[in-house]
Amino acid sequence: MTQIIYGIHPIKEALNSSQLHFEKILIGTPKPQASIQSILDLANRRHIPVAFTSKEVLEQMAHGGVHQSIVGILKEIPYADIGEILSHGKKEGKKALLLILDGIEDPQNFGSLIRTALGCGAHGIIIPKHRAVGITPAVVKASAGAAAHLPIVRVVNIVATIDALKREGIWIYGASGEAKNLIYNLNLNTDIAIVIGAEGKGIRPLVKKQCDCLFSIPMKGPLTSFNASVSGGMILYEVIRQRTLHNNPPSPPPSPLRARGSSEPEATKGEGNIL
Amino acid sequence: MTQIIYGIHPIKEALNSSQLHFEKILIGTPKPQASIQSILDLANRRHIPVAFTSKEVLEQMAHGGVHQSIVGILKEIPYADIGEILSHGKKEGKKALLLILDGIEDPQNFGSLIRTALGCGAHGIIIPKHRAVGITPAVVKASAGAAAHLPIVRVVNIVATIDALKREGIWIYGASGEAKNLIYNLNLNTDIAIVIGAEGKGIRPLVKKQCDCLFSIPMKGPLTSFNASVSGGMILYEVIRQRTLHNNPPSPPPSPLRARGSSEPEATKGEGNIL
Repeated sequence: MTQIIYGIHPIKEALNSSQLHFEKILIGTPKPQASIQSILDLANRRHIPVAFTSKEVLEQMAHGGVHQSIVGILKEIPYADIGEILSHGKKEGKKALLLILDGIEDPQNFGSLIRTALGCGAHGIIIPKHRAVGITPAVVKASAGAAAHLPIVRVVNIVATIDALKREGIWIYGASGEAKNLIYNLNLNTDIAIVIGAEGKGIRPLVKKQCDCLFSIPMKGPLTSFNASVSGGMILYEVIRQRTLHNNPPSPPPSPLRARGSSEPEATKGEGNIL
Repeated sequence: MTQIIYGIHPIKEALNSSQLHFEKILIGTPKPQASIQSILDLANRRHIPVAFTSKEVLEQMAHGGVHQSIVGILKEIPYADIGEILSHGKKEGKKALLLILDGIEDPQNFGSLIRTALGCGAHGIIIPKHRAVGITPAVVKASAGAAAHLPIVRVVNIVATIDALKREGIWIYGASGEAKNLIYNLNLNTDIAIVIGAEGKGIRPLVKKQCDCLFSIPMKGPLTSFNASVSGGMILYEVIRQRTLHNNPPSPPPSPLRARGSSEPEATKGEGNIL
């Protein structure tokens, strides 16, 4: 299937990706603004064909999305396979960090989770083939181009995949609002795959049963859950925090609590030059 | 200005809010499904008028959003004032936690940040009156109803507001990708307001200068930033983590690193009953 990508930022990111290959770029304006012109220059250097077309055609191609007068036709982003993700992590000599998304349906959430996973150094994302959104143009756009940089594996059976990961020595940690374990009490500095369930529904019971451990994020107030992409961000942040601190224990320890007005907080010192 | 809210989940959340008042609910179907019928029953008990109309009218009211055949007309969600937020926090005897959003323009991001802030126990959000999205229907929907529960203050001058907060003894911490301080090295267990900048642009220079301290979230790979609502989630999570651990120091400490296959991880024990 051909993939369509639209909007200035996603196309720029995609052009900078080594995994993405453009078939063509379409422009809906004869007098492109500077940001579009810089894309055209880059496309020219990469020998990517550029063509002009009407705004109506672009609107149809973007299915009503905000295309900013520029649409790219990509060769398909190929799904990866599990072996690829695992060998990638091992080659780097780093502890495994995988994300298993058990039925995310909203392209915005999936795209955002891909972007966050890439920024947190995850080795790949595993999604089910059915009842979940795949790598659609809306997902690529929401990922700000990250979908092109992170291996994404689509499997028929998440439970069987979890079994295979366990045999590889990977622990399976599932996010569940009702779990009593709080995330920051877990040891995340080991080989792990984190399971996040569908929006509003959570992880399916059969998948939940396969998790080595369930955990929750503390939450206050009348709502029952965080947005799925925000939860994912909190969880992956906690992994980064633990792994970075493990490799670089803080010295000196964080500044003690002080009353405002007595002096500036510790962290301000030496920070003026970056303002 | 009258506020329009649409979709089953946002209307349910809004009906459960003590701060929101409906003028009317409009239905686009003569045979409502069970989830809409339960909303109508609740509306009936609350003496909220319900009327039937055409799907075309609903589509126009929702400006093309997914309305699921139900639209609510709300009395305006009033903006709060700073005094209200500060006295609210003090009354509870808790350390201040405010969010200052310096120019968030995307309704999805703003709504998501409101939802996250509420779930993390923030006392309120401060936004600028100009060049930023306000409490629009799209924001209320993206917040999953949280906009009705959290005081949101709109100010003309963020710099002057920061000055006023400082006089109240509140520390101002700004998120900035270039800052050398990593967020988890800061002491967040004190009275703080966290500043988050606009998507792609960050905090404006004049506002940045007013921050007591700038910090960043560690990030890997080719991207330059996390999504604004995801960053906000990571930051507020870190505040919760520090404050919860401060009030409930862990005992026993987190389980040590083990090799998979030797035994189950510590956290699994006694967790089977929640599956």
